[in-house]
Amino acid sequence: MQGKNMTNNKDEKAIDEKLDTMRHSTAHVMAEAVKSIFPEAKFGIGPTIENGFYYDFDLPRTLTPEDLPVIEAKMQEIVKANLPFSYELVSKDEARRIFAGQPYKLELIDELPEEKVTVYRQGNFVDMCRGPHVKSTGEIKAFKLMSIAGAYWRGSEKRPMLQRIYGVAFNNQKELDEYLVTQEEIKKRDHRKIGKDLDLFVFMDLVGKGLPIFTEKGSIIRRTLERFVVDEEIKRGYKHVYTPDLANIELYKTSGHYPYYKDSMYPVMKVDEEELMLRPMTCPHHFQYYASKPRSYRELPFRIAELAKQFRYEKSGELTGLMRVRSFCLADSHIICQKDQATGELNSVLDLIEYMASALGYKAGENYRYRLSLGDRKDDKKYYKDDESWDFAENVLRQVLIQRKANYFEVEKEAAFYGPKIDIQMKNVAGKEDTAFTVQYDFVMPKRFKLSYIDKDGKGKEPIVIHRSSIGAIERTMAFLIEHYAGAFPVWLSPVQAVIIPVSDLHLEYARKLEAELKTADIRIQVDDRNERMNQKIRDAQLEKIPYMLVVGNKEAENGTVSVRLRTGEQLPSLSLDEFKSKIKQVIVERVNELKL
Amino acid sequence: MQGKNMTNNKDEKAIDEKLDTMRHSTAHVMAEAVKSIFPEAKFGIGPTIENGFYYDFDLPRTLTPEDLPVIEAKMQEIVKANLPFSYELVSKDEARRIFAGQPYKLELIDELPEEKVTVYRQGNFVDMCRGPHVKSTGEIKAFKLMSIAGAYWRGSEKRPMLQRIYGVAFNNQKELDEYLVTQEEIKKRDHRKIGKDLDLFVFMDLVGKGLPIFTEKGSIIRRTLERFVVDEEIKRGYKHVYTPDLANIELYKTSGHYPYYKDSMYPVMKVDEEELMLRPMTCPHHFQYYASKPRSYRELPFRIAELAKQFRYEKSGELTGLMRVRSFCLADSHIICQKDQATGELNSVLDLIEYMASALGYKAGENYRYRLSLGDRKDDKKYYKDDESWDFAENVLRQVLIQRKANYFEVEKEAAFYGPKIDIQMKNVAGKEDTAFTVQYDFVMPKRFKLSYIDKDGKGKEPIVIHRSSIGAIERTMAFLIEHYAGAFPVWLSPVQAVIIPVSDLHLEYARKLEAELKTADIRIQVDDRNERMNQKIRDAQLEKIPYMLVVGNKEAENGTVSVRLRTGEQLPSLSLDEFKSKIKQVIVERVNELKL
Repeated sequence: MQGKNMTNNKDEKAIDEKLDTMRHSTAHVMAEAVKSIFPEAKFGIGPTIENGFYYDFDLPRTLTPEDLPVIEAKMQEIVKANLPFSYELVSKDEARRIFAGQPYKLELIDELPEEKVTVYRQGNFVDMCRGPHVKSTGEIKAFKLMSIAGAYWRGSEKRPMLQRIYGVAFNNQKELDEYLVTQEEIKKRDHRKIGKDLDLFVFMDLVGKGLPIFTEKGSIIRRTLERFVVDEEIKRGYKHVYTPDLANIELYKTSGHYPYYKDSMYPVMKVDEEELMLRPMTCPHHFQYYASKPRSYRELPFRIAELAKQFRYEKSGELTGLMRVRSFCLADSHIICQKDQATGELNSVLDLIEYMASALGYKAGENYRYRLSLGDRKDDKKYYKDDESWDFAENVLRQVLIQRKANYFEVEKEAAFYGPKIDIQMKNVAGKEDTAFTVQYDFVMPKRFKLSYIDKDGKGKEPIVIHRSSIGAIERTMAFLIEHYAGAFPVWLSPVQAVIIPVSDLHLEYARKLEAELKTADIRIQVDDRNERMNQKIRDAQLEKIPYMLVVGNKEAENGTVSVRLRTGEQLPSLSLDEFKSKIKQVIVERVNELKL
Repeated sequence: MQGKNMTNNKDEKAIDEKLDTMRHSTAHVMAEAVKSIFPEAKFGIGPTIENGFYYDFDLPRTLTPEDLPVIEAKMQEIVKANLPFSYELVSKDEARRIFAGQPYKLELIDELPEEKVTVYRQGNFVDMCRGPHVKSTGEIKAFKLMSIAGAYWRGSEKRPMLQRIYGVAFNNQKELDEYLVTQEEIKKRDHRKIGKDLDLFVFMDLVGKGLPIFTEKGSIIRRTLERFVVDEEIKRGYKHVYTPDLANIELYKTSGHYPYYKDSMYPVMKVDEEELMLRPMTCPHHFQYYASKPRSYRELPFRIAELAKQFRYEKSGELTGLMRVRSFCLADSHIICQKDQATGELNSVLDLIEYMASALGYKAGENYRYRLSLGDRKDDKKYYKDDESWDFAENVLRQVLIQRKANYFEVEKEAAFYGPKIDIQMKNVAGKEDTAFTVQYDFVMPKRFKLSYIDKDGKGKEPIVIHRSSIGAIERTMAFLIEHYAGAFPVWLSPVQAVIIPVSDLHLEYARKLEAELKTADIRIQVDDRNERMNQKIRDAQLEKIPYMLVVGNKEAENGTVSVRLRTGEQLPSLSLDEFKSKIKQVIVERVNELKL
């Protein structure tokens, strides 16, 4: 069973306390600036957050984006003045006097459990705050106000709506600039934005949340990925099967997923005399295929694979484009084998994963690395009790990683219930590392499902199971790919691989001839026969990220050639139709990640 | 929307009343024979059924199949004696005297609403029966007792279990012989039996009823069919998409399927704030894709296709192997077009259907024909009220069928709610004709979903929709194909296309070389390296219906040739490896339905 979507990485860097202090002080400076512009402002709270801070205000008018540079300028003045931060401990009554006319502060004072209140001052501004702060405002080096949002006081719809200003702050201007560039890039690469711009997928209210419709173009990418997975896995000895998307609840009771994983499963459907559930995982389905007849040691390793639809409950607030959906299709597999076949199978699995990652354009070490997730012998509740099997399995996984010199690290207490695992940690465009999918060693499920094989000696024995994906969920893989390539997919994945642009209507006939020839070679080709100027067509093709533009005019029609322009704007030397056909064919079949022919 | 699985054909031949009378008389003769063997027999009822009759008896001992020839012999004596049938009308009291000691008959007499009871006699046997009967037992020409089964009196578990004998009867021995041969053939071709013998699919109790697991081999056939459909449809201009398997209930309320089709839908699942349902049809999902942005007349015909999983409630008693399942995958499509494009699109659809049927080995007229299903202007409840649109649509469909000289017939009152349709009537191995799938003309759903396009004049207009499948549901298509070919699939669909049989272990090396070469050419090849005699391997390959057996010994290894044996037992002349490779490749790619190379 693959983990519940992406889990937060627990190895985040220790928070930089010094930077956090500076960010907090910047929030106070912003508040002082706001007060100087709006003397009647009422103040909420102003904590730090990742990369920066915010502060909530009750103001006489609604802020607009144009207000932000004004506030920033005022802040710069305060920074330049290098005003010292000072603090004192006062009684609650004294605090009430200081914050007279500040209803939100007064409310907070009333609720404080302590007798005394810490109060910080800089310049004309005073705030209730535990600190610490920088010595003086001059220590604030680089900040920027990012956005304005509405926020209910204390998060309650029944309380007043305040105005929140978000800002970021860094140790120096260089870090801030880098952050801003990255943010711009992340925004540009957001798969939800690109998915819409390139018409790859769409969500419709009437269909439901977290349930994407893949358009013609998005479906081409999806199908190409799916066939790539299936064909490659079959080549590597997998039995690629179809098992049902739903099953009797008894199946999940046998596996132990129900009621243990009940909260992430869809509700039971009573049908006739049966209680059916949409499957949250594929494992028990594959075990039932294995168990459908007696198996011999000759049939092991028995590698079952499937493009398996899975259904897990996700709160609507957690749904994110294709990254988190309510139904996804996992490139899933369960390898049932003898214990002494585990090392060989694990190596084959990692070979496959690395082959696929490379085909998709991911570099080991740069875009992904491995994490060995171990159990905890002392925790019998979280982990199945069988110390010997745990020791054996953890050692097998570790040895495989060491011997293949894999880029990996170890963490404790992150294993599955039924055994240790290798997590494939992918880094997204924001540089954040998350578990994309896993390879798991399982010595528990074979017992639960009474899986067995007849060994050479004629005796029934218990196999072990390796759960694994090869590229993870198709939906999330697509989200990753869209962001990785910012929509400019390699040719083999591009929905339209080349567009023919006739210089004028006179060249339409030749364009049609080219189109027919290239279609026969299974190249996804289009003719742009719109009533638009050539330059407009080239611009549109570039916006659509179509890898090749074949501009055809008199010269090309006469010589039977094509003039190839790349989506990067680069112009290649003229090619004969046959040359172009065989070269683009090669780029597609070999999944070359370069446009040059 | 495609119809609820297969509907019973309403055009069965008028019942042959004469034959039915004879069958009924045969039941009486069987009862007389049973009475002569078991004088203490108590009699239930003995009606006619399709092809024959049955009679329920309460007997002093359980019958065995060996009893049937004994009863048959006694029946033959009675037939030979040519005993006349006579009848009389008697009072209920008189009937009670006649049937003294026959508790089941007495119970029936008590419940009769009439005052008088008709009683038929032949030889030593008397029965309560409305008739009619043949004049004398000599008129019975050809019969056979088929089987014994247990049957509760009056179908109630609370009443005694009687023994039922089933028999068939025909006008003459030739008809009976033909029937028996056909029955034998149907049994041999039963897709459930072949599916098990060839390990194509399996049902597991723990997974649930009507939810097949496709094994490695069955999945190869399924995937081959699916890719064939997708690739061919894309070639013909379809947008092949992926839409969700479930949706908000509001979607089906908008389409009107809910609550109208509620009984055949799975129950609602409450998830977060939404009510979701597994989709019973694809149409509204495709309409939402179309409606996801404004469309221009230039985009029409907008042909959306999908291998769409659908979920319909089926009673467990109605589930039949792959023929009727609880979740199926339909090769579905919705063509959204202008009204005046309908004729062209319908012709393209029928072209596609005929191309695919032919590739699967079905002959028009022999294995399938069309049925034009019309509406009823007087029935506003069953059919959407719009006489003009009905007239137009029915005429379009009829003209298309006439102009292409299609083999079709018309029926009334079989249309969909939203328009007339062409049903594809498939004949199964038993000769029974059923609707496999349909092509529907729909002028109602575009209104419900407010579908529109911007026409040349810049105005928004309403399109029409053609709902169609190309091969129907994948599961049912597989069931049909298995029975059609009795498991001996054409090469392109065969899970294993060729098996290499080394004459001895000395030839294993050459066998492996062949295997590697053929695998590279994407041929599904196996080496039979079991420790078995060659003849046994050949026999097993034939049982597995593997098209080609490549027997390789000294001569083949020396010359680099293969000796090709067909699963029919026929031996082909020797071929070089390259010749074999290119010939089998051609047979596969062109979907040739012949084994000869």
